[in-house]
Amino acid sequence: MISGGALTAVSTWMGGKLTWLYQLSKAGKLCVPAMNVNDSVTKQKFDNLYCCRESILDGLKRTTDVMFGGKQVVVCGYGEVGKGCCAALKALGAIVYITEIDPICALQACMDGFRVVKLNEVIRQVDVVITCTGNKNVVTREHLDRMKNSCIVCNMGHSNTEIDVTSLRTPELTWERVRSQVDHVIWPDGKRVVLLAEGRLLNLSCSTVPTFVLSITATTQALALIELYNAPEGRYKQDVYLLPKKMDEYVASLHLPSFDAHLTELTDDQAKYLGLNKNGPFKPNYYR
Amino acid sequence: MISGGALTAVSTWMGGKLTWLYQLSKAGKLCVPAMNVNDSVTKQKFDNLYCCRESILDGLKRTTDVMFGGKQVVVCGYGEVGKGCCAALKALGAIVYITEIDPICALQACMDGFRVVKLNEVIRQVDVVITCTGNKNVVTREHLDRMKNSCIVCNMGHSNTEIDVTSLRTPELTWERVRSQVDHVIWPDGKRVVLLAEGRLLNLSCSTVPTFVLSITATTQALALIELYNAPEGRYKQDVYLLPKKMDEYVASLHLPSFDAHLTELTDDQAKYLGLNKNGPFKPNYYR
Amino acid sequence: MISGGALTAVSTWMGGKLTWLYQLSKAGKLCVPAMNVNDSVTKQKFDNLYCCRESILDGLKRTTDVMFGGKQVVVCGYGEVGKGCCAALKALGAIVYITEIDPICALQACMDGFRVVKLNEVIRQVDVVITCTGNKNVVTREHLDRMKNSCIVCNMGHSNTEIDVTSLRTPELTWERVRSQVDHVIWPDGKRVVLLAEGRLLNLSCSTVPTFVLSITATTQALALIELYNAPEGRYKQDVYLLPKKMDEYVASLHLPSFDAHLTELTDDQAKYLGLNKNGPFKPNYYR
Amino acid sequence: MISGGALTAVSTWMGGKLTWLYQLSKAGKLCVPAMNVNDSVTKQKFDNLYCCRESILDGLKRTTDVMFGGKQVVVCGYGEVGKGCCAALKALGAIVYITEIDPICALQACMDGFRVVKLNEVIRQVDVVITCTGNKNVVTREHLDRMKNSCIVCNMGHSNTEIDVTSLRTPELTWERVRSQVDHVIWPDGKRVVLLAEGRLLNLSCSTVPTFVLSITATTQALALIELYNAPEGRYKQDVYLLPKKMDEYVASLHLPSFDAHLTELTDDQAKYLGLNKNGPFKPNYYR
Repeated sequence: MISGGALTAVSTWMGGKLTWLYQLSKAGKLCVPAMNVNDSVTKQKFDNLYCCRESILDGLKRTTDVMFGGKQVVVCGYGEVGKGCCAALKALGAIVYITEIDPICALQACMDGFRVVKLNEVIRQVDVVITCTGNKNVVTREHLDRMKNSCIVCNMGHSNTEIDVTSLRTPELTWERVRSQVDHVIWPDGKRVVLLAEGRLLNLSCSTVPTFVLSITATTQALALIELYNAPEGRYKQDVYLLPKKMDEYVASLHLPSFDAHLTELTDDQAKYLGLNKNGPFKPNYYR
Repeated sequence: MISGGALTAVSTWMGGKLTWLYQLSKAGKLCVPAMNVNDSVTKQKFDNLYCCRESILDGLKRTTDVMFGGKQVVVCGYGEVGKGCCAALKALGAIVYITEIDPICALQACMDGFRVVKLNEVIRQVDVVITCTGNKNVVTREHLDRMKNSCIVCNMGHSNTEIDVTSLRTPELTWERVRSQVDHVIWPDGKRVVLLAEGRLLNLSCSTVPTFVLSITATTQALALIELYNAPEGRYKQDVYLLPKKMDEYVASLHLPSFDAHLTELTDDQAKYLGLNKNGPFKPNYYR
Repeated sequence: MISGGALTAVSTWMGGKLTWLYQLSKAGKLCVPAMNVNDSVTKQKFDNLYCCRESILDGLKRTTDVMFGGKQVVVCGYGEVGKGCCAALKALGAIVYITEIDPICALQACMDGFRVVKLNEVIRQVDVVITCTGNKNVVTREHLDRMKNSCIVCNMGHSNTEIDVTSLRTPELTWERVRSQVDHVIWPDGKRVVLLAEGRLLNLSCSTVPTFVLSITATTQALALIELYNAPEGRYKQDVYLLPKKMDEYVASLHLPSFDAHLTELTDDQAKYLGLNKNGPFKPNYYR
Repeated sequence: MISGGALTAVSTWMGGKLTWLYQLSKAGKLCVPAMNVNDSVTKQKFDNLYCCRESILDGLKRTTDVMFGGKQVVVCGYGEVGKGCCAALKALGAIVYITEIDPICALQACMDGFRVVKLNEVIRQVDVVITCTGNKNVVTREHLDRMKNSCIVCNMGHSNTEIDVTSLRTPELTWERVRSQVDHVIWPDGKRVVLLAEGRLLNLSCSTVPTFVLSITATTQALALIELYNAPEGRYKQDVYLLPKKMDEYVASLHLPSFDAHLTELTDDQAKYLGLNKNGPFKPNYYR
């Protein structure tokens, strides 16, 4: 049993904290075991992919009433959050472009029907710019200068660093608050860029998080804490761990009844054939 | 450097072999290092998800000319192959049901808009049954007995064990070969079940594999062999390894020009912020 | 030239008025020419199909914060409004059932991947009920009695007659206003039904109408009035007319630049081959 | 009752014949009544939209084994056939551009998430060119000269006039038949264009027509002939008529049981409210 201070990390809300946890661990400065709950499958898929698929639409509508059909949108980053945003926008008739640094995600974007471009190639023509990278200064002042009038800019990634908002706090630009969470930044020639939530997270600032997603994430965190607390001495050292697959599966199974979903059980013979326990875990730990 | 006998495994074609490799390793009987190429991201996504999304349609059309619109289909298994099949069939207007043993995959199916059922709940009403489980005896004689007339049954998973075809080789049933790879199995009351490829893999037997997918998979395998061959003594022991992330990314990057996709490069500042090398790898090894 | 009183009708906001106009005309009591702008292609597609595809999501989110993924939804009516609602909900992972009276629309629903059912077949299991019929008493007290706890009920069709809200104003039911436009109607056993906008139009009461759609509809109406006003004596009698195709096309062409869309022009040779004027109209009047 | 010679027209197979019928009628040279079955809703939607949504994929796969994911495709014409082709290709991960002459169809393409371009804007970059216009010389020798190596060209529209195939029968180009229905046309610099079915209809030449669609179309034609035959003297003059709505609905209702679809019936009260007969027709004649 571990006493005191067990940590769990959830990146949508703790962002850079996760990297920081791994850095502490590498430096040998982590003084308690920690669980990286953020990278469990249920957290990744439900909090990021499925939740953002809905909150990108909700956040944009509540702030700008924009119509999605026919709009040209560039999404920076095609991780889980980016994939969710793109799926929703494409389904509602937007034309979506992707920027990516990772060739695997870029190739997935191609297969999903999106053109992969550098931001500069499309910045003059798009109606909406959305960042989902976890990075900083993805949208720079130079990009903002080149956007067309009425372009909407927002951040679905992490923290408030993805759009270089500081670069917009200069004397030649006028800020006009047109609604809660919505600023018009006005260039000397009259061009307006519509900045949402001052570059902070759109999904947390301008849309709601469904109770279902909160339930998934909270359950995952609670189970991680219980596991750390109950684990026999020595199971966890002063390091960062992924949530054991079996707990990840348990979180999911607790939420199936909401959808009246009926799981199939393995027969003894099938379990033996697959080399699995009938109660799981059903997949290797690296499976997503 | 390793001499001789380096193994690489690709599951679409080697199926159970992969489990067997891990079993050998566990038993201490693996006499060379092996790379589990099958579970690299490029293999998983491109060979399984994206390729099967197309070959399920192709395989069904070439063998049966079935119209997808309005058809009720049950897909057993919602892993990468199942996800690909379901996405394609849903897009073309089929109504798709899922069976799953794994609660995480089941919950994903719910989020993607599919009802998760036990096979018995829908077996009397569906027009098509597709297995993608990697398991055996998923479709049993009892299920086959309950299918409606003209129901199409096929396997996209692995090997030829998913449908219990042996149980159909009994005197009271008549087999009629109506076309290459297509058998009508006829019950005494005249009911016909349309069995494709005698339960072997539909995507390999009845559709083609696009050269793009072959290129991805072959590149991954070749790189794995080169890595095993070139690795300094001691890097790989007599165990099963995942392909290093960086190679996985390299495979992807080699295929981006076919789509005229343009990667974004990290600035020095951004790379430092993310704690990444500008040339990758960009994601932790467990990322999919 | 016609003096005074020219009428134009737009059904999303005038609903039954349109039927009434045709009835007046049949009865010989229409005293001025009228244009049925509602049934022009641009009005039908943009105000109904494309606008409702977005406002159903917006209206539901703003009032209930419901997550769409995995939800079971029944949509009553598969006309343009129903088609729009269903496309959006399906894309976001809802499982959608349709009720229809018209076999052509029902068959389209099948082809689009929806099960066509009677309301009673699914009323106990669905999470959301949406009416888009133009009819009255589509959702009756009997249906409301059988809904499960927390079921959301709303109207996207016309007027406030589609849900029999009057039947809920009885002593044994308690109404609780939980938010603007959101009532919980509470049964004696504690079951709550979530009624939106007291059965009035969700898209007008609880979501916004994009300026693009307003522009389309207003342009159509303005052109109809100009045409009626400018038409030579005798072109229009005391009857109900559809907007001439050419004007419908003109409305569309005025809105193409917002999307940077580039029309192709017919060559003389092609125009001759098709028997068309190079400037349109390009389709017969009944084309949608 | 009409004796002899009643005509029905079905455009997928009779294409230009339909225009010709209207021209005959205009010129007063039509000597029998004719029904334009092609423009009935069931024919338009099922034979064109829903059938082509499947046959474009089938035709391309059987002839070229092309992978759709990530491919850039231009579809000329966004009528019912074009809409079907685009929906299918988009769903399978292709990036689709549209060319259109009609602003209404062009605006629909925008709303559905496609960029509307002139053919010249994208001809150098696309992997596949598909014509669905009903027009002639839509793809000219000049376009063919500018296509990139391996570009696939095919026709889903009508007749064999949409692609100017004649212009490719010149001495400097070499034709190589690589498979039934597939020609490589080779430019002096080695560039190959992949021409399918020599520019004839891909869906008829290289894919199959599902029995369901044949049944819809044949039923429509048969009913039209029966109606012309049985109609009381004087109902039909020597002109071209659309199929009465009620018959269109009847065709649809005959096909609902294949999908286990259950129609809802109007109550007397509802029928009265809507001013409809409980047995239909349920929509005005111009409704699609």
